[in-house]
Amino acid sequence: MNHRIILLAHGSSDKRWCDTFEQLASPTLDAVPDSRIAYMELAEPSLDTIITEGTAEGVSQFTIVPLFLAAGRHLRKDVPAMISELEKANGVTIKLAPPIGENPLLGQAIRDLVLQQLDTSAT
Amino acid sequence: MNHRIILLAHGSSDKRWCDTFEQLASPTLDAVPDSRIAYMELAEPSLDTIITEGTAEGVSQFTIVPLFLAAGRHLRKDVPAMISELEKANGVTIKLAPPIGENPLLGQAIRDLVLQQLDTSAT
Repeated sequence: MNHRIILLAHGSSDKRWCDTFEQLASPTLDAVPDSRIAYMELAEPSLDTIITEGTAEGVSQFTIVPLFLAAGRHLRKDVPAMISELEKANGVTIKLAPPIGENPLLGQAIRDLVLQQLDTSAT
Repeated sequence: MNHRIILLAHGSSDKRWCDTFEQLASPTLDAVPDSRIAYMELAEPSLDTIITEGTAEGVSQFTIVPLFLAAGRHLRKDVPAMISELEKANGVTIKLAPPIGENPLLGQAIRDLVLQQLDTSAT
């Protein structure tokens, strides 16, 4: 496949943090063929690892879906700078999608889980 | 109402950050009577403001639902310390729910929105 989806999480030295993101990513990784999770910093696989690996496997187009609720400095500055370097180093195209929190489906899921929690605590 | 749900976001001095969280919170605020959004730092309304206001209105039990994908230092240390002080200062009970990212509904919503994006870009 010539196009690969990468779910990008922040990363942490705390394994519990990464475990949560791997569980969060799991339904997408199951549903989207050839997709991957990568970390911006402090954990592996790094974005660099995943892009280099994909390039070696013949992928030339990547789309990064940030597992971030909103765009702060990381998504406005740090990640675009990383992307620019990785594109040059690997001769590939990397598109940065909006953070997941900007999609209305997320707000609906938050509503549903809060209602679910209220239901559980009421019974 | 004697119990109030508070959606807690990190906060930022960047208005665009807060706008995203307000949109994310909107379906929940519409669906859950008397619920509020509050910010941990750098934006208003602060958690302190929302708890003090609620206490003055006769609310004695609060549940904080963190609009965070995973629990890092903020949710493991900073927020519990804030809660403990606010409970003492206001004579109320404040429960800290798990971060939204620990609920499987979130992972399913991420899958759905990635599939939706792939659909849109394919057409």
